[in-house]
Amino acid sequence: MIEILKKIAPSEKEKEKFSRTAEKLLAEVEKEVKKIDSRISIALLGSASRDTWLRCEKDMDVFVLFPLEYEKAQLEKIVTQIGRKILKKPEKRYAEHPYVKGFYDDFEVEIVPCYAIESPSHLKSAVDRTPFHDAFVKEHIKGKENEVRLLKQFLSGISCYGAEAKVEGFSGYLCELLIAKYGSFEEVLKATQNWKRGEIIHFGNVSEEGLREKFPSPLIFIDPVDANRNVASALSEQKFSKFIFAAKEYLKKPRREFFFPRKRVVNRKALLKKFKQRGTELLALTFSKPNVVDDILYTQLRRALNVLKNLLQNKDFSVIGIDYSVSNRICIFIELESLEIPSARLHLGPEVNTWHERKFLEKYENYRGKFTEPFIIGRRWAIFLKRSNNAKKFLQEFLSQRNLEEKGMPSHVAQSLEKDFSIKINEGAFLEEFLPALQEYFDPRFAWER
Amino acid sequence: MIEILKKIAPSEKEKEKFSRTAEKLLAEVEKEVKKIDSRISIALLGSASRDTWLRCEKDMDVFVLFPLEYEKAQLEKIVTQIGRKILKKPEKRYAEHPYVKGFYDDFEVEIVPCYAIESPSHLKSAVDRTPFHDAFVKEHIKGKENEVRLLKQFLSGISCYGAEAKVEGFSGYLCELLIAKYGSFEEVLKATQNWKRGEIIHFGNVSEEGLREKFPSPLIFIDPVDANRNVASALSEQKFSKFIFAAKEYLKKPRREFFFPRKRVVNRKALLKKFKQRGTELLALTFSKPNVVDDILYTQLRRALNVLKNLLQNKDFSVIGIDYSVSNRICIFIELESLEIPSARLHLGPEVNTWHERKFLEKYENYRGKFTEPFIIGRRWAIFLKRSNNAKKFLQEFLSQRNLEEKGMPSHVAQSLEKDFSIKINEGAFLEEFLPALQEYFDPRFAWER
Repeated sequence: MIEILKKIAPSEKEKEKFSRTAEKLLAEVEKEVKKIDSRISIALLGSASRDTWLRCEKDMDVFVLFPLEYEKAQLEKIVTQIGRKILKKPEKRYAEHPYVKGFYDDFEVEIVPCYAIESPSHLKSAVDRTPFHDAFVKEHIKGKENEVRLLKQFLSGISCYGAEAKVEGFSGYLCELLIAKYGSFEEVLKATQNWKRGEIIHFGNVSEEGLREKFPSPLIFIDPVDANRNVASALSEQKFSKFIFAAKEYLKKPRREFFFPRKRVVNRKALLKKFKQRGTELLALTFSKPNVVDDILYTQLRRALNVLKNLLQNKDFSVIGIDYSVSNRICIFIELESLEIPSARLHLGPEVNTWHERKFLEKYENYRGKFTEPFIIGRRWAIFLKRSNNAKKFLQEFLSQRNLEEKGMPSHVAQSLEKDFSIKINEGAFLEEFLPALQEYFDPRFAWER
Repeated sequence: MIEILKKIAPSEKEKEKFSRTAEKLLAEVEKEVKKIDSRISIALLGSASRDTWLRCEKDMDVFVLFPLEYEKAQLEKIVTQIGRKILKKPEKRYAEHPYVKGFYDDFEVEIVPCYAIESPSHLKSAVDRTPFHDAFVKEHIKGKENEVRLLKQFLSGISCYGAEAKVEGFSGYLCELLIAKYGSFEEVLKATQNWKRGEIIHFGNVSEEGLREKFPSPLIFIDPVDANRNVASALSEQKFSKFIFAAKEYLKKPRREFFFPRKRVVNRKALLKKFKQRGTELLALTFSKPNVVDDILYTQLRRALNVLKNLLQNKDFSVIGIDYSVSNRICIFIELESLEIPSARLHLGPEVNTWHERKFLEKYENYRGKFTEPFIIGRRWAIFLKRSNNAKKFLQEFLSQRNLEEKGMPSHVAQSLEKDFSIKINEGAFLEEFLPALQEYFDPRFAWER
C-alpha cells in the first residue's frame, strides 16, 4: 500500500509547488474581481483544496462567488474576461452554465462562476453547491486524504473513475463521501460486498421512502448538502457491478495490478483466429468523429448503438453484440449471427373469422413482396413475405438517407454519418486503429487479470 | 347443387343393391348369433342405416348387441368367430374395444360388439351409444339426408371430413347433427360465420357453465344422447378455421371446386425455384412407415414433429416450419433459417454479487466449451460458450442413439428410426415421393383455388 501511495500521492515538494502556484493564481484572479465589485469573492475548491488530488491530476478549480443580484449573463461575461486575461489557451465551456477552461503554468485551470448562497436549499445553479461540498468533505475526511487517493486510483485502474459520460463511474466527490462514510479504502471495498442494486447510502436524517423511484440508479448516495440529489446518479449498472466484483477479488488477493493494470498486447492474428472459431460475422461502421465535447459524444454514441441494434433486430438480423470505439475516427462494430438471412419470413396475421381477416386478405391479395398466398396455421392467418436479406446492404441503404436524425439517430452522429461512412465486414472489419476495442470484445479480460 | 348431388348421392339402383346386400349380410350374422344366445340382437347402424352415405362410401357397420352379463372377452371372441366365418379378409381391430373388419361382396364391413343398454347414461363402452345416435339422427334428419351428403362432400373437398387422427376434422355423426341443428347445408355454412373459438352448440337442456374448461376444443357440440360428450372433440383448430373460411368463400361464390377440387400438378423445377428464392434451408428426414393403424401413426407423427422442433430450437436452430408426409415411407421435412449457425452463443448468467455468482464462476473456470472468460454485461454475468453448429450433424447424432423413446420420441416412430433413417438437405430433400406435400408447404393453396 505504501508503494502504491508513493506513486499516486504528491510529494511534499510537489504539494509546495502546487500551493505556490495556487496562491499566485488566486491572487491574480482576486485582483481582477476586486476591480469590478469588492463583494465578489473567490475560492479554490475541489480536490485541490481538499488535498485529495492524485499526482497525475494537475487540476485547479477556482470558483468566483457573486452576490445574488447579478444576472447569469454578467457572470459569464466577467469570468470570460478574467479567464482571457490570466489563462493560456482560454476556452469557454458549458456544463449547466458556462465556465472558462485554460492553462496556468503546468496546471489545467477552470474558472467557474457561482452565486454566494447562504444554504444549499437556495440553489440558483448546480455549481452553487460546490462550496458546501468543500466544507463537508474537509470536515469529514481530515487525515484520510490518502484513503481517498487509494480509492480513486483503484477505481481508475478498473476504468470506473469519473462521472463523465465516457466512463459512467464514480466522481471524485463520490469517492470522498465513500471514505467519509466508511472510514478507509479497505472498509469501502468491504462495504460493497453487501451492496444490492438500488443501495441507498446517506449520513442520516433522510427518509428512504420513494427514493428508488426518484433515483433509478444502481447506487443512491444522498448528497449530504442537498437531500434532493443523488451523487451517484451517473453511475451505470455495468460500472457498479464491476466495482463490486473487483473489490471482491482485491479483498481475496490484493495486487498492484488493480491500481496499475498491465497494458494488453494486441495480436491481430490471434484475435482473427478467435473470431473465426466463433463462426459469427462482424460488421464495422466507421465515420468521422463529431467535433463535440466528450460528454455529448459518448452519450450520443450510446444512443446510436441502441438505434442501430433495434433497427437490425426489427429487420430480423440477430445481433449478438454491439459496441463502439473512439480513436481519430469512430467505429461501431456489430457482431451478428449471420450477415445474410433468408429472404422469406413467416408473417403471422389475425385469427380466422375475426374483423381483421378481411383487411389482411385484401392487403396481401395483389401484394408484390410475397412468396406465398395467405394460408391458415391453427387458428391464425399466415403468409411468407419478402425482407432485406443482407445486413451490410440494408445498413448501407439506411445510412445513405439524408434525414437520419428524423429516424432517431442522435444529431451529431447523424451529421457525421451524412458526411461519410464506410462499412467493412468480417476480416476487413479488423481495422488496426480499433483492434484494442475488438480485443476487449472478443476476448474480454478484467484489468487486473491481463 | 343438383349436379353435385347426382355425383354423391347413390342412385335408386345403388340403394337397392345396398339394401339387398345388407339384408343378406344381416341374415347371415343373425343366424350365427342366434345359435349362441337368442337374446343377442343385431342392427345395421351408421350412415348405412340413416341413408346418409355417400356414393363413394361402401361401408356397413353391423352392431351385435349383447346382454349386460356378458364379459368383454366373450364379446370379442364371439364377434371374431362370426367375422371369420362370414367376411372375406377378416381382421381384428382395436378402437376402445375390439371389432372385426372385412369385406362382404364389394362392401367394407365392420362387425362391432356392444352392450344392449337401456339408456346412454348406463354406458359400459363408448360404442354402446351408437344405437341411440342412430335413433336420434333418424328422427331429426328425416327428409334432409341429401343435405347431410352435401355437407360431407363439402368437408371432404376441403380435407376436413373425418374425425380420425389423420384428418382431425368433422365426423359423419357431427355432420348429421349440424344438419339436424341448422336445417340445411347452406344454413350450416351461414351459421359458421358467427362461430367463435370455443363455440358451444347443443339441443337444449345443457348448462354452458364450465364447458369450455371441460372441453378444450374450438367447437363444442354436446352429444344429444350424452351431455358428457363433445362430438367435435377430435376437431383441430386448423380444420375448424379452414371450414369457416371455406364456408365464407363458398357463400360468396359457390363453385363445384369446393366439393371436387382439382388435382394439383407438381412441377419439381418450379418448386425448387420457389424454395431457392426464399433463401432458407430444408432438411428431410425419411424413415420406414411403422406398421400400426393410422390413428396411432398420425398421432405419433404429430408428437414427433413437436419433439424434433423443440429439440432444434433448444439448440438455437431457427425452425421456420415443420411437417410430415406419409407415402410408402415417412418423410418429416423441416425448413430452417439456416442449417449452420455460429459455434458461439452468448450465455447470460446470474447477477453480479448474488449467491449464484460463485457457482457460475467456478463452473466456467476450467470449462472446455468456452470461447471467452466470464465478463459483465450491465448487472449480469455473461460468457460465450460453444454449441452444435450444424443441424444435419446434430440430428444425425441425436437420432443415432439407441433410446429415442426415453428422449421423448413416440414409441413406433422411435422404433422405426432406430432401424434406419436418412437425412437429405436442400435440393436433395426434394424427394419425388413427397413432392406433393412439399408443394403444399412451399406454395399453399386452398383446395378450391388450385
